[in-house]
Amino acid sequence: MSSVGIVETKYFRIEQKICLESGVEFGPIEVAYETYGTLNEEKDNAILLLHALTGDAHAAGFHCEQDKKSGWWDEMVGPDKAFDTNKYFVVSSNILGGCSGTTGPCSINPETQKPFGLKFPVITIEDTVKVQRKLIEHLGIKKMIVAGGSMGGMQALEWAISQSDIVDAAIVIASTARITAQGIAFNAVGRNAILSDPNFNNGDYYNSESQPEKGLSIARMVGHITYLCEESMHKKFGRKFQDKDSPNFDFNIDFQVESYLAHQGRTFVDRFDANSYLYITKAVDYFDLAYKYGSLEAAFKKSKARFLVMSFTSDWLFPTSQSKEIVQALVKTGKDVSFFEIESPCGHDAFLLEFQTQTKIIKSFLAKKVRNGCGHE
Amino acid sequence: MSSVGIVETKYFRIEQKICLESGVEFGPIEVAYETYGTLNEEKDNAILLLHALTGDAHAAGFHCEQDKKSGWWDEMVGPDKAFDTNKYFVVSSNILGGCSGTTGPCSINPETQKPFGLKFPVITIEDTVKVQRKLIEHLGIKKMIVAGGSMGGMQALEWAISQSDIVDAAIVIASTARITAQGIAFNAVGRNAILSDPNFNNGDYYNSESQPEKGLSIARMVGHITYLCEESMHKKFGRKFQDKDSPNFDFNIDFQVESYLAHQGRTFVDRFDANSYLYITKAVDYFDLAYKYGSLEAAFKKSKARFLVMSFTSDWLFPTSQSKEIVQALVKTGKDVSFFEIESPCGHDAFLLEFQTQTKIIKSFLAKKVRNGCGHE
Repeated sequence: MSSVGIVETKYFRIEQKICLESGVEFGPIEVAYETYGTLNEEKDNAILLLHALTGDAHAAGFHCEQDKKSGWWDEMVGPDKAFDTNKYFVVSSNILGGCSGTTGPCSINPETQKPFGLKFPVITIEDTVKVQRKLIEHLGIKKMIVAGGSMGGMQALEWAISQSDIVDAAIVIASTARITAQGIAFNAVGRNAILSDPNFNNGDYYNSESQPEKGLSIARMVGHITYLCEESMHKKFGRKFQDKDSPNFDFNIDFQVESYLAHQGRTFVDRFDANSYLYITKAVDYFDLAYKYGSLEAAFKKSKARFLVMSFTSDWLFPTSQSKEIVQALVKTGKDVSFFEIESPCGHDAFLLEFQTQTKIIKSFLAKKVRNGCGHE
Repeated sequence: MSSVGIVETKYFRIEQKICLESGVEFGPIEVAYETYGTLNEEKDNAILLLHALTGDAHAAGFHCEQDKKSGWWDEMVGPDKAFDTNKYFVVSSNILGGCSGTTGPCSINPETQKPFGLKFPVITIEDTVKVQRKLIEHLGIKKMIVAGGSMGGMQALEWAISQSDIVDAAIVIASTARITAQGIAFNAVGRNAILSDPNFNNGDYYNSESQPEKGLSIARMVGHITYLCEESMHKKFGRKFQDKDSPNFDFNIDFQVESYLAHQGRTFVDRFDANSYLYITKAVDYFDLAYKYGSLEAAFKKSKARFLVMSFTSDWLFPTSQSKEIVQALVKTGKDVSFFEIESPCGHDAFLLEFQTQTKIIKSFLAKKVRNGCGHE
């Protein structure tokens, strides 16, 4: 059972246009967000949680009594949890370009009264942070901590750099300051699958009977392989057949791992928009602090935050070596940084699964008891 | 320049039906093959080369004077090369289910006078070897060596076990006795992309104007990521933009790695059949010597061959650990086995690229000068 109980998604509207990194002026923007805990009088006890690729504002709790599935980081948010709602005012919002309440390609374009589709501007991680900043100002927050895994970690880094006046601390989990060529390649395959789906119809499918479900499903399947790791797939499925003991000798599903992936693909299309998948993976591909600032050290120079960086041993999508690059650049620029590589067989998904160790480390970091250095858990 | 010069693809027809592992009786079968060098009087100097997933019979040389591209293992086949045509009679054939001359789903079904499509029976690695055996008998070969990389290595293992009367030695490169759950997952994504392409039309697309090119292209892109490795992709492309210095801010190709993958996908559809891709990846998924024989040791018991097993440090599709499993089972059953893990940044593709080291080791093995044991190169 969730310990934050029933929560409500709220909406905040940014009326004035925002200048995006591409140069496009874009607005108005609606932001879906949730909060857990209470903002103190000093308005300096906030923690902003930043979701991963396909996440949403619903980080913790249930939306109603009948709700079976709690928020994506429910184990981490609540009284006495990693993000302790007795002490902190925890905020979570859906990112710009998403499909879970914040303005994105499926939203109505006020100029045409039709969904934006591919008329939605291409966004970057910096743009998503700019939008979140408006929300944070709206909530009256003066000082805050940012925390996120995977793409959420990218946003946390971006916050600590481009919004340095307000960020006290940044928790960056299973993340990177830029994805690898291999990471871009996997995202490119996913986008290709969507763009190749005849139902995609150049992004204009919202009022059509047929959606680009097959393309989106394939994109999710590819993604899902990268979120797990060989070890976890071996443990979970190995080469076990699905509901039988021998091969079909046809092209139906033979192995459990095939069934699992097909299920992941199928259920994903019910909750995610193909256009959002294009926009958000593109933002991930573009994110490159060293490219933008000249070097990673230059990027971190203006940050005033202290950092907690965590990686997982079996994460091959955003491997430990990439976290270490961040840590080394932070050390070189004299920042306060703690680094933990957590032993886990769960691959990249570990940040959504390894609650105990993360909780211990985060609690310690938030209590400022983590020593400045490196550790293994 | 190729050293075997101009070669011709020949065809051999197996008139009688073959009993496939699925229980289906199938035939007649035409086999496309090439030979390099001369069979000796004792008919015991043959080497059968076994191609990988999308290979063909054309292992070496050119098909005509104007030919720009030599066979897939040209650097390894010829006078004084790894497979020395001064000494050996080298044979290479396209596998059953392929699309380069040997009977496969694109061949004409004699019962309907139309291409088989999905009426082609599902095949296994054992079936492909049975067909090759008929060719070997047709050529009058009495004793032989088998050699192959990746899926070719699976066939080499299968030959050494199920055709043990004729195999003196087996060279198994960048291969495995069974692919991992992750490997099955990648193949499943590829097959899904093909099956989801509306032009696939349940495999009946040969006489149609539109082919399932997009699905096949996506399958190839996914495959290609697994043939390289993060290190080689980083070296080759890094995060370099394609023909520019900054992002497009659209969904066209931004990065070199995207352009490369798109090119790989595009060119593949010109030379490969989507149905063959389904059948051959399925054969790869099904291959599991331990499942078939009870254990890997039990599988190797009846083999009389000596073995050379080679893996590459950066191969994450068929990693060294899988080669070691083969080697350990061979050692346990008292077989003569030599193992080399070759240092290479080329990923799984290394068996098609690292000629010098492979040549040195193979020459030594064929001259019986390789000590029985393990090495690093």
